[in-house]
Order: sequence, then C-alpha cells, then structure tokens
Amino acid sequence: MSEYKAPIRDMQFVLKELAGLDDIAKLPGCEEVTAELVGQILEESAKFASGVLSPLNKPADEEGSKWENGEVRTPKGFKEAYKQFVAGGWNALQAPAEYGGQDLPKIVSTPVIEMWKSANLSTWTGTMNLTEPQAGSDLALVKTRAVREGDHYRIYGQKIFITYGEHDLAENIVHMVLARTPDAPEGVRGISLFVVPKFLVGKDGSRGARNDVKCASIEHKLGIHASPTAVMIYGEKDGALGHLVGEENRGLEYMFIMMNAARFAVGLEGLALAERAYQQALGYAKERIQSRDLSGGDKVVPIIRHPDVRRMLMSMKAQTEAMRALAYVVAAAMDEAHHYPDKEGRARNQAFVDLMIPIVKGWSTETGIDVASTGIQVHGGMGFIEETGAAQYLRDARITSIYEGTTGIQANDLVGRKIAREGGATAKEVTNAMRAVEAQLGSAAGDDMAEIRAAFSAAITAAEECVSWIVVTYGNDIKAVHAGAVPFLKLMGIVCGGWQMARAALVAQRRLSEGKGDKSFYEAKIKTARFYADHLLTQAPALRNTIVRGAAGVMALAEEQF
Amino acid sequence: MSEYKAPIRDMQFVLKELAGLDDIAKLPGCEEVTAELVGQILEESAKFASGVLSPLNKPADEEGSKWENGEVRTPKGFKEAYKQFVAGGWNALQAPAEYGGQDLPKIVSTPVIEMWKSANLSTWTGTMNLTEPQAGSDLALVKTRAVREGDHYRIYGQKIFITYGEHDLAENIVHMVLARTPDAPEGVRGISLFVVPKFLVGKDGSRGARNDVKCASIEHKLGIHASPTAVMIYGEKDGALGHLVGEENRGLEYMFIMMNAARFAVGLEGLALAERAYQQALGYAKERIQSRDLSGGDKVVPIIRHPDVRRMLMSMKAQTEAMRALAYVVAAAMDEAHHYPDKEGRARNQAFVDLMIPIVKGWSTETGIDVASTGIQVHGGMGFIEETGAAQYLRDARITSIYEGTTGIQANDLVGRKIAREGGATAKEVTNAMRAVEAQLGSAAGDDMAEIRAAFSAAITAAEECVSWIVVTYGNDIKAVHAGAVPFLKLMGIVCGGWQMARAALVAQRRLSEGKGDKSFYEAKIKTARFYADHLLTQAPALRNTIVRGAAGVMALAEEQF
Repeated sequence: MSEYKAPIRDMQFVLKELAGLDDIAKLPGCEEVTAELVGQILEESAKFASGVLSPLNKPADEEGSKWENGEVRTPKGFKEAYKQFVAGGWNALQAPAEYGGQDLPKIVSTPVIEMWKSANLSTWTGTMNLTEPQAGSDLALVKTRAVREGDHYRIYGQKIFITYGEHDLAENIVHMVLARTPDAPEGVRGISLFVVPKFLVGKDGSRGARNDVKCASIEHKLGIHASPTAVMIYGEKDGALGHLVGEENRGLEYMFIMMNAARFAVGLEGLALAERAYQQALGYAKERIQSRDLSGGDKVVPIIRHPDVRRMLMSMKAQTEAMRALAYVVAAAMDEAHHYPDKEGRARNQAFVDLMIPIVKGWSTETGIDVASTGIQVHGGMGFIEETGAAQYLRDARITSIYEGTTGIQANDLVGRKIAREGGATAKEVTNAMRAVEAQLGSAAGDDMAEIRAAFSAAITAAEECVSWIVVTYGNDIKAVHAGAVPFLKLMGIVCGGWQMARAALVAQRRLSEGKGDKSFYEAKIKTARFYADHLLTQAPALRNTIVRGAAGVMALAEEQF
Repeated sequence: MSEYKAPIRDMQFVLKELAGLDDIAKLPGCEEVTAELVGQILEESAKFASGVLSPLNKPADEEGSKWENGEVRTPKGFKEAYKQFVAGGWNALQAPAEYGGQDLPKIVSTPVIEMWKSANLSTWTGTMNLTEPQAGSDLALVKTRAVREGDHYRIYGQKIFITYGEHDLAENIVHMVLARTPDAPEGVRGISLFVVPKFLVGKDGSRGARNDVKCASIEHKLGIHASPTAVMIYGEKDGALGHLVGEENRGLEYMFIMMNAARFAVGLEGLALAERAYQQALGYAKERIQSRDLSGGDKVVPIIRHPDVRRMLMSMKAQTEAMRALAYVVAAAMDEAHHYPDKEGRARNQAFVDLMIPIVKGWSTETGIDVASTGIQVHGGMGFIEETGAAQYLRDARITSIYEGTTGIQANDLVGRKIAREGGATAKEVTNAMRAVEAQLGSAAGDDMAEIRAAFSAAITAAEECVSWIVVTYGNDIKAVHAGAVPFLKLMGIVCGGWQMARAALVAQRRLSEGKGDKSFYEAKIKTARFYADHLLTQAPALRNTIVRGAAGVMALAEEQF
C-alpha cells in the first residue's frame, strides 16, 4: 500500500480557476479567507492526512473496531489520532465562531475533508440515529418512542446502522435521535428530533451518570472495518433521557439540514477514494515491469506504457478530476447561498445546491466504486490480494452509494423534488450555463477543443431532452420517470463533470496562450478533458435513450414472472 | 443468505431453443445425448448444487482455507463434498470414455458447471502453474528451470497464484508446470510443460515418496476465501521430479488448450455469480417492506414494487439470461467444432469459438461483477453486512475478470489474434448472422419487437463499424486499436448478448402464437429482451464513438504528467 499524498496542485487549480475562491473571499463574512491562508490550511491538512491518518488506514482495516459488553474499542492509533485532530482544531473547522469554531467557508473545508477521507475513510464519526430495522429508506415507519417528562423526554427504541454510535475516542457521545411522541401524527410529519447524550451532563458541563442508552452490537461489514456501525438500544431500563431539538414533529426537517451536509460529504468520499485508488494504481503501473512496448523493441517495460493500462489510469484520473471540480463548485455555491449580499443571489445559489446535492452524492459515489474497482484491475492478480491495499478501497467505497440515502433515493429526490416540482427551472439554468461554455469551446483553437465541444454539445442536448421529458411525464406517469431516475442521475453527473472539465480546458488553454504557469499541467488538463469527452460524455446520448424509452421494460413483468 | 436454486427452466429453454441441443444430439459421437438424459443430469446436478455445495458457500467463506507447515486445510465440509462429487462421477463428466470419463458434450456439461459455480465458486480445483512473481500476463518472462535427468526432469523455481496448488481433498495433486530447459530459446517459444505430482506414483499406480514441491504460503484475498491460492516452491532440495508433456518448447501451445477451456469456464463463473446474486436480491426485494407504492395507496409494499428496484432486478435478470444464452451457444459450437462431420464445418465452428472465448470470458466476468454489485445495492444497508451474503458474491466475482487473463488480455487477444489477423472474416460472419435475426424481427408483430429491432440494428452497425476500423487501423496504429480494445470487447459482449436475447424473443413469440408451452415464461422472455434493448444495446453506439475516437486521449500524456 502506498501512503496518500494530497493532490494540492489540482485542488488549488480547481479552487481558484473553477470554483471562484477569489469571489468567495469577497463575500461578507468571508473576508479572512486569503490565498495565503488557504495554502497554509491545505499544507497543514495534507501533513495530517499523510502523516497521521493514512498510515492507520490499512492496519485499522485489518484490526477493525471490536465490541465487548457494550463498549467499542477502536483500532490501535485511533485515539491518539483523534486527540491530535482535536488539538489541531480540525474538528471545529466549519463550526461557527460563536461556538468556538473557525467558521471557514465550505470552499476551504471541502478540500480538507477530501484529504481526510482519502487518507482514512473509517476515521469519521457522527451519530445520526434515523434507521430502525423496519425503517430504512422509509422514515415514515420510525417507531422509537419519546415520552415527555417535565423539561425532557424519555426515549425508547432500537436504532441500527449508527456510524460511531459507540466508540472510545471521546469522553462523551451526543446522539441525534428521531422518535415519535405518543400523540404525534402518523408518517414523516410525526417525527421529532432529540439530543441524547451517552453520559448526562451537569449544568456546569461536568460529566454525570450513564444514560439509558447502550450499544448492543456492531456489524461485520464488507468495508470500513474500523468504523463501528452500531445497533443502539434506547430505554431498556427507565428510558434514555433526551432533549427536544426545536419543536415537536419537525424532526425530519431539522435532520435534513444535517442530512444534506452529510450527503455532500459522502459525495466527497466517492471522490476521495477515487483519488486514493488512482494514486495507488498509478504507483503500481509505473513500477510493475511486464511485456514489451507495442511500438517495438525487445525490452519489457512498465505497464503504464501499455494502452489498456493507460486507458484505465486516464479513466481514473479524468473522473476523479471531474468529481473534484464539480464538488468544489457546489461547495462555493453553498458559501454563496449563505453569504451572498442579496436575497435573490442567495436563493439562486441555494437552488443550484439543492439540485446538485443528489448528483454529487449519487454520481460521485457510484463513480468512486467504479474507479476503485478499476484500481484493482490495474494491479492484475496483486489487486485481489489484501496486502496490496487496492481491494480495501473498493470494499470501503461500496458503502458510499448506500448510506445517507442510496443512489435510488438520490435519483428520486433529483427527478421529483429537484426537477419536476419546479418545472425544471434550475436544471434549465444549468444547461444554459453549459451552453455558454460550449460556445466558448466553439471559438477555441485546436482539435481537442473541437472534439470536446462536439461530445459536450451532444451530452447537453441529451440532458435537456431528459429534463423536458421528466417535467412533461412526471404528472401522468410517475413510475416511468422513477424507472429512469438512476440513469438520469448518471447522465447528469457525467454532463456536469464534463461541464467542469470543459471549463478547465478553456482556462488551461488561456493560461498556455498567456505563457503563464505550469505548461505541462495545463496541457494535461486539456488532454484529460479530451479523454473525458470521448470516454464519458459519449455515454450521455445512450443514457437519454434508456431514460426516455426504457420504462416499458422496467415495469412490464408481473412479480411472479421474476 | 438464500440457498441456490438451479434455473432449470431457463437452462432448458436456452439449450433447446437457442443452442440447438437436438442438432448436437445428431452429431457423430453424441448419439447418447437425449432430452431425457439431459433432463436427468440437470436435475441430479441441481440437487448436488443446492443440497451439498450451496450450504457450504458462506461458512467456507468465513472459515477460509488455512495454511500450516506446508499443508492446507480446506474449510469444514469440503472433503466430504469432494468425496460425494467424485462418487457421483461428476469429476469425469467431460473426460473421454477411454479414461473412464462420461464424454458428455460441452452443451451438457456447461449448464452443470454453471450450477456448481453458482452454488460455490470456491470448490473448483485445478493447478495450472504458469505465473511467477516477475511473469504474470507476460509468460515470456518465466524463469522456472527444468533439467533433464534420464526419462524425467528436475524442476526448480517458484510459482505464485496457483489455485488449489495445495489442499487436503485428494490423495495426490498433479501439477501442470511451465518451465525452461537449459538450452531453450528465450521468450514464449522456449517454454515446456511438465507434469509434477505432489507424491511420486509407482508403475503400479501406488503412491510413492513426497516429491520436492511444497506450498510456501497461501494468499489473503478479497474473495474466494475457501479456495487456497498457493505460492509453490519447486526443487528446494534435489529438484522436483517432473515428466515432459509432448515436446520441449511447445509448452505454451499445450497450456493454451487448457487455458482456452479455463477461460470459457471463468466466463461461466461470471454468469454463475450473476445468477446467484440475482436470486438473492430477488428474494430480498419480494420480502422487504418499505415505502408506499408510487401509484397510490397508504400501504407500505415490498420493494420490488418500486421502479428503481425493479430496474435493478430487470438489469440483473436480463444480463444473466443474455450471458447464459451466449455461453451455451458457444458451448454448442465447441461440440460442433469437435464432432461436425465435415472439416469445413468443424473449422467454421472453431473460428466462431475462438472469436467468442475472449468475449465470453471478458464480458461475462465484467458483467458478473456489475450484477453482483447491483445485488448489494438492492439490499440497501443490509447488502453491506457480510451476514446477508450479497457482499460475498461481489468479493468472489472480483477475481474473475483477472485470473486466466485479465479483461485487457482478453480484449487484446480479441482485436489482434481473433480479428485483425484474419481481416475480420469471422466477426463479419457473426454480424451477418445478426442481420438475419434483425430481418426476422422486422417481420415480427408488436411494439416490443420493433423497439428491439431498432436498438439491435444500431448496435450491429456499431459493431460492424468497429470491426472495419480495427482491420484498417491495426497495421498502422496498433496502439490506437489496443487503447479501444476493452471498450470493443464490451461492445461485442453487449451486441452478442442482444443477438441471443433477440433470438429468444422471436422463439417466444412463435411459441405464443402456436399457443404452446408456458405463456408467462414466453411473455417474460419478450419483455426481458425489450429491457435489454433499451438498457444495454443502447450503449453500443456510445462505445463505438469511444473506440474509434478515444485513442487520442488515452495516449496523450507523458508518463510524468500523470
């Protein structure tokens, strides 16, 4: 296994040239953000990722977290890493200054989080208690009860799949728990949100008695072995003491604030693992000597010289860069949605963010899985051997398209709430913005730009046609739209990634013509965009056909015909 | 985990209606094959697969094979299962009658092998000693030495990745080993093949002394945990005694007879795991209750009612059926290549088989991985939990696109030896045969047939154009062809699968119009072919663009630009 090395050069390029870091720094409340500060943060974060988190990744996967008598022991080194993490102030990066945080904008925290997730996907904690055995994607089925008792509540029920529901990293654990009060309405409008600490906390902040919440077991999983996935039991004795967040019955609304942040963060996990898998495969392809060069000669050469290995590496590189560019652009829009001076600008950016979150989550995680699997393939037989490290990235990545809402859930959110509900207005703004980029490609010189433009144009047309079809079809045949929802999410991911790759190619060509900066880097950007156009954007028209025509086959069989 | 149930109905359909079982039964040497016999063999084999092999699959994955002091202990139950396997005569199914085998044609053994691989991928033994640490895909680099000593040879060297190189199932193990004699020419023309037994065998067949070959260790792998993958050391002391097979320096040629059989068999593994993953996902989708039906009503329903789950299941089902149909058709062609009365007919079938083996191997294994991953997705969070069983199919499947030649190796074989070398002659015969099916679709009634025809026609065109491009380009830009080799293999797999699905739909429509047989089954065949057309065949034109245009981006970067 190779250690992670943060791709700071590409991160800086995306931040400055694509995500508009300078513009974010001018927003009210973001004045402290300077290029120098961002550079320092990235450097320090990269050191922490490479020096502390990355070396723990493989041994922690092998050891796993262990459960014993309700306690969870995280793998060797995690406690110390967590201490360093907190001591460095990293856990407060995004928190508001009034609560002791650094209040950094999303555009700065996003690359930092990418680094940590690349370095070690299993070190990230959180305890959002939504799922129950009978209530997974469908939270309307939540049964956990919350009974009022003076200024607090008593919570009773079982939660499953709770990431870091129990661990030994911190003194206390604060659970966010969805539950129903006795007189709540049925369905999602009768769910409230509670804060339930592992240890009760005195008025002076001192740690009090153990609350009536315990970890019954942790799961044996395909990947993220170091991350304990807990079964939590609330109120086995006299009820777990919990505090209501906000008002009763508005729990899902509050939880979705966290959930949207979490979905974006899980999208970053797809990107992060793709980057890590790419680095590992690239290192192997440069070292492994096998077979002669097709162009002749008797010498056996590093496998990176062979076209199919090169194709795999380019596919990993191009998709990773596309995911990064899109995620950072969305992060910048989150900052604009928060800090933009006028309300209309904030709303416009928020609409863009809302549209993009299911795409960043769904597309980046599915792509991350593909890229991790390609990373194994680059290694040949060695990729299947656990010691190599490539297999872990696939095992870890495989959860990302499931947790915080499966790809299907993201896709249904995209076609329903994010497109059909507003008649496709924001989606059309996005495709219009793409058309503007296409026009710029049209006046750019060279074959590469012409080919990128041709593939991008066809892909935008495919997206536009699907958006129109969704808007028209949703009201009269909702099942047909949902039958094509995941292919549509994939199409949108590919096209949005291509949009950013096209923008990157235009910037690179401008910098080259100015004779500024790193020539080799900018040339590679153009060639990588070209690869993306020929190998990814070409899929868009095919997906359009599947989306628009494909529902008949999806819904045709009776259940007994399966 | 659900137990495996052999899909005998679909197997019988494919054997009789698509692979031409009746025609094979008429071939000289195949006269014993009757529908009744085949039915009995499938039933008995299904019982063995479900009753003996399938229940061992999960516990054996958990336990794994263990190495200690050069010995390998297979998981609990494997010895007994192997005894039953041998006692039932199953190990001799394909062997010639003169060596005590049953001499059954490939068309009969193929579904049987599919069943066993579905039931338990890790129970299949074989010891082909090709790979060395420095010689993986590139066998020219083999270093193991063979020194002549009278009527035998002494073998010295290390082999890695040897499936069942050591185990406790049988009294003896017979290794097939590639090695070089001292005066052999360099490269692949200097490799000889040797038989090296674990225990020497007396002239009377009695077991003699331990040979100088030992298992140094076994690998810790992503999947097929029960299948020991051995590092073998030959000649640590006085040289392992081996016997030459055939003539010196022709070892690779002999090994490729086994290798081609093995590649086809690994293609069946992709199919087999797809079938198993589909059965498991289908069972879960029918039982798991979550969310209301989109068409209305307050009741929460089994998730098979939800369009995206349905789409995933259809995609698993359609691809599994397409892989099965293609594999059995190729198996029938193997029988015709062997038994056809005239030489021209044998040669024609052999050319078809040669073209198809890299496709069956490469496409079915890549598709098997996708289908297994989709199976996890159908389960949501439960899919990531090892106890569910879905994750094992992905872990096990992930080796199939690597061993016996990676997908890249298959694809290079396809574009080079199988297409360019003969100017695309056999490939053109295949696309012509597809055009004949397309014409039949043109005169078939109904929307489904029309849509299948449209998608199939565009896909054939894509394949034809790529074949022509490969033939023209191979001589002047071999790297460009190899850069598109894997996308081309994928395209060919999709189109060949679509060819068989279209044939199945035509047969089904004919049977329906005759009022014969199982109406529900035939209707499902047409709808499944329709799904395949809209969701898989639509990818073919996109792949054509990638293949023909995509090389520029693949080869553009200098190594230091990665």
